[in-house]
Amino acid sequence: MTLPHPNTDQISLPIVLGVLGDPTRLAIVRYLASKEGVALNCSQFLDLGSKTNLSYHLAKLREAGITRTEIRGTNRLISLRRADLDSRFPGLLDSIIASAIKLPINIKEAVGVETTAR
Amino acid sequence: MTLPHPNTDQISLPIVLGVLGDPTRLAIVRYLASKEGVALNCSQFLDLGSKTNLSYHLAKLREAGITRTEIRGTNRLISLRRADLDSRFPGLLDSIIASAIKLPINIKEAVGVETTAR
Repeated sequence: MTLPHPNTDQISLPIVLGVLGDPTRLAIVRYLASKEGVALNCSQFLDLGSKTNLSYHLAKLREAGITRTEIRGTNRLISLRRADLDSRFPGLLDSIIASAIKLPINIKEAVGVETTAR
Repeated sequence: MTLPHPNTDQISLPIVLGVLGDPTRLAIVRYLASKEGVALNCSQFLDLGSKTNLSYHLAKLREAGITRTEIRGTNRLISLRRADLDSRFPGLLDSIIASAIKLPINIKEAVGVETTAR
């Protein structure tokens, strides 16, 4: 079984921006970027939200073409589609990640105390 | 009378991305960037949507800190907050504008025929 992913030329700028307009999804992308080249298991994101919430956010990221989800047995491995995003929107992912690094990594804190800078 | 605008340090990455996740708002930003340094009157955006729709989109852009709206008599002058955005999120606006340039400028067409490239 494979999950649906958009082709590179189907990745849409407004959809990518809209999907990244969420602190949890930005934190997931930032975490994936920090472990680049490694596909991460869903459970590695559990600091960022509940399992149900994460499934929802990971589906949004996959459907927008930002991440790839591979099913391996009972695992789902998530990776950033950096090459696809870089070819489609040069410089965009890097500038978003560079700015997202300044955000608090702990989402509950980010939502609760919006003005806290780290 | 002045309209509320966030200070530079209140401009939030997820909010900016979320607000730009819309083809009409991307087209407005692209148009403002093409006329940079000039404050534009609301009526100059009428190709991009109805008056009511534009008021809504321009308010969203202002509240996110992406644009500045100045009231001059019966006119509203809109300009891009490029310096504020560049200092807050270096490179972000340029990469978004560079990618948005590839989108169709006519929003009705962009929404109707998503795969048309110009």
